[in-house]
Amino acid sequence: MSLLVVGSVAFDAIETPFGKTDKIVGGAASYISLAASYFTKSTNLVAVVGEDFPQEFVQHLNKHGVDTTGLQVKQGEKSFFWSGKYHTDMNSRDTLVTELNVLANFDPIIPEAYQNCEYLMLGNLTPKIQQTVLERLHKRPKLVVLDTMNFWMEIALDDLKETLKMVDVLTINDEEARLLSGEYSLVKAAAKIQAMGPKYLIIKKGENGALLFHGTEVFFAPALPLEEVFDPTGAGDTFAGGFIGYIAKTGDISFEGMKNAIIYGSAMASFCVEKFGTERIIDLSETELNARVHAFKNLVNFSL
Amino acid sequence: MSLLVVGSVAFDAIETPFGKTDKIVGGAASYISLAASYFTKSTNLVAVVGEDFPQEFVQHLNKHGVDTTGLQVKQGEKSFFWSGKYHTDMNSRDTLVTELNVLANFDPIIPEAYQNCEYLMLGNLTPKIQQTVLERLHKRPKLVVLDTMNFWMEIALDDLKETLKMVDVLTINDEEARLLSGEYSLVKAAAKIQAMGPKYLIIKKGENGALLFHGTEVFFAPALPLEEVFDPTGAGDTFAGGFIGYIAKTGDISFEGMKNAIIYGSAMASFCVEKFGTERIIDLSETELNARVHAFKNLVNFSL
Repeated sequence: MSLLVVGSVAFDAIETPFGKTDKIVGGAASYISLAASYFTKSTNLVAVVGEDFPQEFVQHLNKHGVDTTGLQVKQGEKSFFWSGKYHTDMNSRDTLVTELNVLANFDPIIPEAYQNCEYLMLGNLTPKIQQTVLERLHKRPKLVVLDTMNFWMEIALDDLKETLKMVDVLTINDEEARLLSGEYSLVKAAAKIQAMGPKYLIIKKGENGALLFHGTEVFFAPALPLEEVFDPTGAGDTFAGGFIGYIAKTGDISFEGMKNAIIYGSAMASFCVEKFGTERIIDLSETELNARVHAFKNLVNFSL
Repeated sequence: MSLLVVGSVAFDAIETPFGKTDKIVGGAASYISLAASYFTKSTNLVAVVGEDFPQEFVQHLNKHGVDTTGLQVKQGEKSFFWSGKYHTDMNSRDTLVTELNVLANFDPIIPEAYQNCEYLMLGNLTPKIQQTVLERLHKRPKLVVLDTMNFWMEIALDDLKETLKMVDVLTINDEEARLLSGEYSLVKAAAKIQAMGPKYLIIKKGENGALLFHGTEVFFAPALPLEEVFDPTGAGDTFAGGFIGYIAKTGDISFEGMKNAIIYGSAMASFCVEKFGTERIIDLSETELNARVHAFKNLVNFSL
């Protein structure tokens, strides 16, 4: 059951109340494909980096079973770079630097061997590029999941709305759901957004968990209360990667199946925030992962 | 299994983005005893009002099985009055008016028939008064639950800390937990607060649900996603009333028992916010309540 992941593979420099990093590997597709790799061994990556990108990380992905044939390396160019600083509450951050570099002219070329993928995860990118990916696939995947952000709602809303018509699942955070729908109530927002295209909407609320909406059905998964949230960067992408990876593993795209996928996505995200960047999710054991999923079950289990 | 509720019975004037009220009945103990009355028919109330307080509401309480022998009516005096205005997000509010009136000299007299209560719910009041109630009981109840707020942490922290040593369960919101403990992480905050006395800590997070901590155990109950939160006033008290009422009904003060009580508390609170003041919880049917609890089960149920 092959999974195609398209998104940024990049550098981040992060500052949190707990410390700061130099340039480390980041990017939506890095987190997504790493997280998915714990569930499916046929993940294919389409992304672009510059010649400055460390081959070592690409080898890490390969070791995890991620196919990087579709990772374009642009000689003489630099990788996308983002730098940000989190506030004390870790729920808000300031962007310090954004250098698009290779991402400015990203042409998402799909290798022939990646055609006929069953699952497609479109990480946060220009809506136009996300749409191009869909147009270039000869056959529509069984399930298309799209992540986006407030930035595109502000500067490319029409493109985004076009793209939304083509996807099955949208993942955004609560603020973005309010911005996109113009509704404060998330229940009302969910109804409006579903009418824009995606039949399933996942609203991510960070330390306050995640909601899955489908028609009048709703499911809530909490975030695991943690001693320390060290660095929230990539948590949403890791969540999405765990979610789509688990679906690619089970092949179950029903509402019930998605609930379980959200629990696995939440478990993966709960690891991600424990260290800087991808550090915590680069080498998880099955025992660790199972223990975390077990903790989630205990967290919400009651006997009524 | 008798329940003693001590707290304010008062007037509120509320403004939300959806409308505003004149003086309506409010006060922690009004919400608590009403909510508890859906689970236990032996609720005893200790509170104080002025001669301006409507007899009609007292009759409502009586009809719900709440004994109001302990409700002092001060002739020639006025009831406690609070007025506030909620911001658009409904999570923050400004206090416009606070008139202590009869509450300024509240002496919590416990009628003899109220002695030997098994459960005690101390609604938000001066910590000294809460402590006085405990000292006046001939026998310590099986379970003592205390609600308080940031105000007392700021102006009467030493008194509050003394009182905390005497209680089993503390209910506060996330901001208050951070303020009381000096820890941002709720997991760390919970450990510090438990060391202050209460072996059980409930952290209320409004539309983001509630957490129950006990030692290293933790349980999370979501809030039901609602189309409209009309007026959050009293939601925390209604939650506490449903919680202690359900415990008084079952007699189960184990961690497992408290989990179920929290679900019932959350269900009661989800009704409370649908209308102004106590309006929505004054006349709930058993069918409505059961349907709401069922919705909570569906909301978090997954098959893993």
